[in-house]
Amino acid sequence: MSCYSDFPFPEDYPNYVPNSQFLEYLKMYANWFSLLECIQFKTKVCKVTKCPDFTVTSQWEVVTQHEGKQESAIFDAVMVCTGFLTNPYLPLDSFPGINTFKDQYFHSRQYKHPDIFKDKRVLVIGMGNSGTDIAVEASHLAKQMFLSTTGGAWVMSRVFDSGYPWDMVFMTRFQNMFRNSLPTPFVTWLMARKMNSWFNHANYGLVPEDRTQLREPVLNDELPGCIITGKLLIRPSIKEVNENSVVFNNTPKEEPIDIIVFATGYTFAFPFLDETVVKVENGQASLYKYIFPAHLPQPTLAVIGVIKPLGSMIPIGETQAQWVVRVLKGINKLPPRSVMIDEVNARKEDTPSGFGLCYCKALQSDYITYIDELLTSINAKPNLFSLLLMDPRLALTIFFGPCTPYQFRLTGPGKWKGARNAILTQWDRTFKVTKTRIVQESPTPFASLLKLLSLLALLMAIFLIFL
Amino acid sequence: MSCYSDFPFPEDYPNYVPNSQFLEYLKMYANWFSLLECIQFKTKVCKVTKCPDFTVTSQWEVVTQHEGKQESAIFDAVMVCTGFLTNPYLPLDSFPGINTFKDQYFHSRQYKHPDIFKDKRVLVIGMGNSGTDIAVEASHLAKQMFLSTTGGAWVMSRVFDSGYPWDMVFMTRFQNMFRNSLPTPFVTWLMARKMNSWFNHANYGLVPEDRTQLREPVLNDELPGCIITGKLLIRPSIKEVNENSVVFNNTPKEEPIDIIVFATGYTFAFPFLDETVVKVENGQASLYKYIFPAHLPQPTLAVIGVIKPLGSMIPIGETQAQWVVRVLKGINKLPPRSVMIDEVNARKEDTPSGFGLCYCKALQSDYITYIDELLTSINAKPNLFSLLLMDPRLALTIFFGPCTPYQFRLTGPGKWKGARNAILTQWDRTFKVTKTRIVQESPTPFASLLKLLSLLALLMAIFLIFL
Repeated sequence: MSCYSDFPFPEDYPNYVPNSQFLEYLKMYANWFSLLECIQFKTKVCKVTKCPDFTVTSQWEVVTQHEGKQESAIFDAVMVCTGFLTNPYLPLDSFPGINTFKDQYFHSRQYKHPDIFKDKRVLVIGMGNSGTDIAVEASHLAKQMFLSTTGGAWVMSRVFDSGYPWDMVFMTRFQNMFRNSLPTPFVTWLMARKMNSWFNHANYGLVPEDRTQLREPVLNDELPGCIITGKLLIRPSIKEVNENSVVFNNTPKEEPIDIIVFATGYTFAFPFLDETVVKVENGQASLYKYIFPAHLPQPTLAVIGVIKPLGSMIPIGETQAQWVVRVLKGINKLPPRSVMIDEVNARKEDTPSGFGLCYCKALQSDYITYIDELLTSINAKPNLFSLLLMDPRLALTIFFGPCTPYQFRLTGPGKWKGARNAILTQWDRTFKVTKTRIVQESPTPFASLLKLLSLLALLMAIFLIFL
Repeated sequence: MSCYSDFPFPEDYPNYVPNSQFLEYLKMYANWFSLLECIQFKTKVCKVTKCPDFTVTSQWEVVTQHEGKQESAIFDAVMVCTGFLTNPYLPLDSFPGINTFKDQYFHSRQYKHPDIFKDKRVLVIGMGNSGTDIAVEASHLAKQMFLSTTGGAWVMSRVFDSGYPWDMVFMTRFQNMFRNSLPTPFVTWLMARKMNSWFNHANYGLVPEDRTQLREPVLNDELPGCIITGKLLIRPSIKEVNENSVVFNNTPKEEPIDIIVFATGYTFAFPFLDETVVKVENGQASLYKYIFPAHLPQPTLAVIGVIKPLGSMIPIGETQAQWVVRVLKGINKLPPRSVMIDEVNARKEDTPSGFGLCYCKALQSDYITYIDELLTSINAKPNLFSLLLMDPRLALTIFFGPCTPYQFRLTGPGKWKGARNAILTQWDRTFKVTKTRIVQESPTPFASLLKLLSLLALLMAIFLIFL
């Protein structure tokens, strides 16, 4: 689900790829497409400004710094790919007494290895994916682990129903259509029920304050196990910090704490750009389709990856880039400025709340819906109706199966001839790495009977649908 | 579920108690009942033999060794409580080439800390609970972890349906009655389905060869997560061991291995007893109800804790001891020797298979059925029918709720007046330690509607039952 659309992971890669292996994959990709020669490393972009003759040329002057030496160059277009995890957000003012704290505290971005937590009483503040990952990892070594969360979160296991990877089950066009066609409160209730079926979030102290906030779940397999064994204790928000301890709201006991990790998220900014080009306000940038500054006369500057869908960033960024290139080439046209500004303003009305991850809500978008918009723009959206006639197996796999990035390469300007095969073999490759010990099946009579019954039920369902 | 029946865990203990806290609990128990003064520490029992006048007195001569000095004493009765995890079972002959292996290997019993696995390629052989625990713990540090299993296993999560502790859901008198009243193949199929609903064991390479073997599941929350992230690779049985590597059956690749851990289980023996007293054969001892040597003229020797039910050993051992004391006191009588010998022989026919954990099958017994037998003997089994009239809330909690050890203290010689309250508050205490952050509930309209519907369904069900 997280690969580049024309470059599947090597077959021996696990279903969830650890960081070191992911870096290896990125290097393989860069080598395969000879990207390294296009990249100027160790170079800081200091300033990107409109050229004096911008109204005529729409060109940009880019000032860079390499080994202490500044250089300037003129470019016809600029793509900004710095992402939204740039500036650690450390809201110390929200934690009375933090200045009196004698021990160590740092932002989650500075975290590298759990060894520092050995035999310590550690507090992680913030229950996003980073905070939870760090808390769980630290719990193997720490003397006692605390995880403080104001808003709570829905926690999902990557080992989903019947052990399938969660995103391969959840991210299907069929399920997406199903979810989008039902009334929101019903979907919210359905999702909450699903989340609670693994473990009751209220009993584990994790239930979200805002139960309708389903877009940013925490993905973690180990968290409930850490709680139930007492390795990790969930705590509400912080009342005050003392010299060597912390007091939580609605909790009488003062807890001695040795290390505090602020997993309070990030803010993003474009310090090298003038505010007249891209302005970030309340965690929102005025970008049409999260990409183009809405009020520029010519779209010669684009921002890639400042969006946070519940889904992988890799194919999103890649497809955004494909569209931008076509816009720059003039193949695609953007709508009039007023339309773009209206779209941006409409999005702004969905005001964010809470701290730390506040920008998330503003950046949220439905993965499949958003990428389909981009694919339509670049003429690469697979037409399921015609496909159903030409290649029904592929069409059904695309609709009911996981929305893997290969789908974005079946047709259009970036068509990749390996796409069809990659889609049809996606489950084989998923199981290959885990099914490493094979036992001859010997089905029980009950299983056979049930299979027969399910087949009958399926036939009946199909019959009813086509009625 | 694992506490002494009259001594609940402290309220701040987690639902699953880590080893260090469990030791603390045992010390509390010993202190509370002033047991330490009855225990002679650092003393080895060398020999337990029948006294010369055994036919008349049924007494035992016990030779002990304390600080190098041997002593001998006569006892009216002896209770042997050495358990069945005494001798590590290391079947090196089953691993061709193990003698050529240049690196480190050891039995799981010698394992203390995962630090030794840091950045190593580690192989754990055997997928019992120890093997799996070690493999999962090591996977956080090891370079690559392998877990080799011949027979596979069903793996269950301690975080069970809706996050309740598995044993509190699974070990109820209601469920036990349900399971025991259905045909075995159906129960087997039902259980396999349940186990596969968390993750499909075939897809994860874990499916048991003998799918009917449901008695000894592996309890681990993290294993599938370790497999799906590639930290831990499942492998079939071993073909041969080389200098620095291992070849698995049906797997072409030879895997470089730095450390091998043999989690191949234990055998048990009573080296201090003569074979004419207790003989261990094929992992079975000739013990009536797993306790009394069947052929002794007088029951003045008893063995505690040589049984392996799917359930806690603590209340089993405790109740066994209560019965033994009453037999020794003469309050309870054992059946004639022939009856006892018949019972033992009948059990022997269930021949064990496989290596390592072979004794398990022989020692297996249904937790609730077995403990009810003991409770009946000591007159402490709660009478649910009369209780339903006198104290219906308690009766229903006992029948439908977890079979917590307090149930064994409601009545009978060891009656504990705290038992009723401990039973009625068991779920409160379970949630208290995890529900450490409380959020005001705001039920959605759908939830309220559903609650109403469930209530109607429940009323209807009750109505139908009493019809």
